[in-house]
Amino acid sequence: MSLYSEITEQPERIRSLLASQKKTVGRIAAAIQKRDIQYVFLAARGTSDNAGRYANYLLGALNGLPLALATPSLFTYYKQPPKLKNALVIGISQSGQSPDIVSVLEEGKKQNCLTLAITNEARSPLAKAADFLLDIQAGKEKAVAATKTYTTELMTIAMLSTALNENKARREELAEVPRWMNAVLKHDALISKSAERYRYMDQTVVLGRGFNYATAFEWALKLKELAYVKAEPYSSADFQHGPIAMLESGFPVMAVAPKGRVFESMLEILKRLRKELLAELVVISNDKRALSLASLPLSIPADVPEWLSPLICILPAQMFAYHLTQAKGYDTEQPRSIHKVTETK
Amino acid sequence: MSLYSEITEQPERIRSLLASQKKTVGRIAAAIQKRDIQYVFLAARGTSDNAGRYANYLLGALNGLPLALATPSLFTYYKQPPKLKNALVIGISQSGQSPDIVSVLEEGKKQNCLTLAITNEARSPLAKAADFLLDIQAGKEKAVAATKTYTTELMTIAMLSTALNENKARREELAEVPRWMNAVLKHDALISKSAERYRYMDQTVVLGRGFNYATAFEWALKLKELAYVKAEPYSSADFQHGPIAMLESGFPVMAVAPKGRVFESMLEILKRLRKELLAELVVISNDKRALSLASLPLSIPADVPEWLSPLICILPAQMFAYHLTQAKGYDTEQPRSIHKVTETK
Repeated sequence: MSLYSEITEQPERIRSLLASQKKTVGRIAAAIQKRDIQYVFLAARGTSDNAGRYANYLLGALNGLPLALATPSLFTYYKQPPKLKNALVIGISQSGQSPDIVSVLEEGKKQNCLTLAITNEARSPLAKAADFLLDIQAGKEKAVAATKTYTTELMTIAMLSTALNENKARREELAEVPRWMNAVLKHDALISKSAERYRYMDQTVVLGRGFNYATAFEWALKLKELAYVKAEPYSSADFQHGPIAMLESGFPVMAVAPKGRVFESMLEILKRLRKELLAELVVISNDKRALSLASLPLSIPADVPEWLSPLICILPAQMFAYHLTQAKGYDTEQPRSIHKVTETK
Repeated sequence: MSLYSEITEQPERIRSLLASQKKTVGRIAAAIQKRDIQYVFLAARGTSDNAGRYANYLLGALNGLPLALATPSLFTYYKQPPKLKNALVIGISQSGQSPDIVSVLEEGKKQNCLTLAITNEARSPLAKAADFLLDIQAGKEKAVAATKTYTTELMTIAMLSTALNENKARREELAEVPRWMNAVLKHDALISKSAERYRYMDQTVVLGRGFNYATAFEWALKLKELAYVKAEPYSSADFQHGPIAMLESGFPVMAVAPKGRVFESMLEILKRLRKELLAELVVISNDKRALSLASLPLSIPADVPEWLSPLICILPAQMFAYHLTQAKGYDTEQPRSIHKVTETK
């Protein structure tokens, strides 16, 4: 099973990435620091777009860089790209193939912006279009649903952020990621057994906030493309501005709520969902107060810092989606209607 | 019924807004042109966030301005706002109350950015925090679900875009919006009757692209908060990068596909959805090829230009959500679990 082995090989991939890409990341950080970069303009689709959501919070919080997610159709169909003065233009794509993402980087280069490709294919059109390449070196990903290319994309972003504002404590924390990942992988048997309960779940919402807004989106995407569950991701704040109205008693809600700055606000909404709206909760956390509200608590190590928690929290989410897909009797390797490389304009 | 009258009074509100706010819009455009603005940084939640999605495409395509959607938690919980050099900071909120949106504008002011509030409450904290105020003058909105404050927010954005790059043809098209809206409102009886068919629909996806990416989000939000339908919005491109896998035969898909630059790509996916995946389609369009694929075709006038089509396309969507809510026997004025003013940090 490619998908299963791709999930379990993530700690090793991250460990080797940390060693092999350190110099390249340093070189890219130096090039960025030489320019008067005022914001990041980032283009991506699908899983890579969720890596972009992580970059939005991480580069904002730790590097003071605002980030605009590109609207590729302005570059392709409308042929009216915005003026990208003083922008760092980043494209993320595991295959490096999608023409719309490539066209954003080409336009960035045309406008004399610094351009960076984050991809698993060093010879792809995306890599060729960029000034700099961050090769995520995830090895061939055979399963259609992306797993190891997601966490390696997150890792290159975390490494770049750390190199931009050199910080010894953060660098040491980066090195702990493989260990934390291995600790989570040990829960595989438990998750496999617990997934049975959700055999007939056909819809859910997935909540996260701050750094783990990205995790909510990526968890929902895995549930959709693998287990065919209609899973809608939300920031817990946006969820309260309307969508909460659609919840009925017993409705399943997935939540990503590790310790950190947004934890108390997540805990508050989880309490309301459980006690007032009688929702069923599946919670990824390292805080007992959140885990104790869940029908299915998915714990991560206590000492994971919030800024790196998306790299760890996505593992139980991937394992849950994988085992749920098996419980439902669907194909984990080749979901219906989609392909590994999707070329959109 | 407040909601119904708020839907039908939209042409009149838009007409009076065009006349009364013209000078203010011109003054704001002049202030923007005086500064070296390199991108827009926009904060909003819920329906106003969907108005922000329209601004993203409109200001990008017609004014060359890249737009970053703010991540308010960086300003509130993380207390690590990014550096907003050369940004125009915009906050959109009908009530002007939500503390997270206000805090983004306050930070923008602290960093010497030009700040603009778009709100229905001229004395709100948001209006007070900004250098400039665009009062959407929608009148009191009593129903919890926003309708006329959405289209008046879109209209102020369209007026500002036009004032920034003065263009006679576009100014004349702006004046036609009330007429196009009135033409669509005439389909009310038809929509009311047709909504019956969807009495037992409990989930759907809503597709749009380009300028009408915003319409897909706003239509989905109305379906969620009024009719309690689990409706997930997508760009038609993102939808093909994974989520399309979850569709079963007969699954209802709503689509916003007026004539314009992205129409052919929308038509292609609508054909695939109808013919290959046997989806049931509800389509808003002014092109017969798209309408003919739909079980429920919702037509808009033939001469609506793409850049203003979100102001027109949202009307049949609002009417559909309203009549579906009635068909389901729910409260159109006060949906469960939500309130008119949601204060999130």
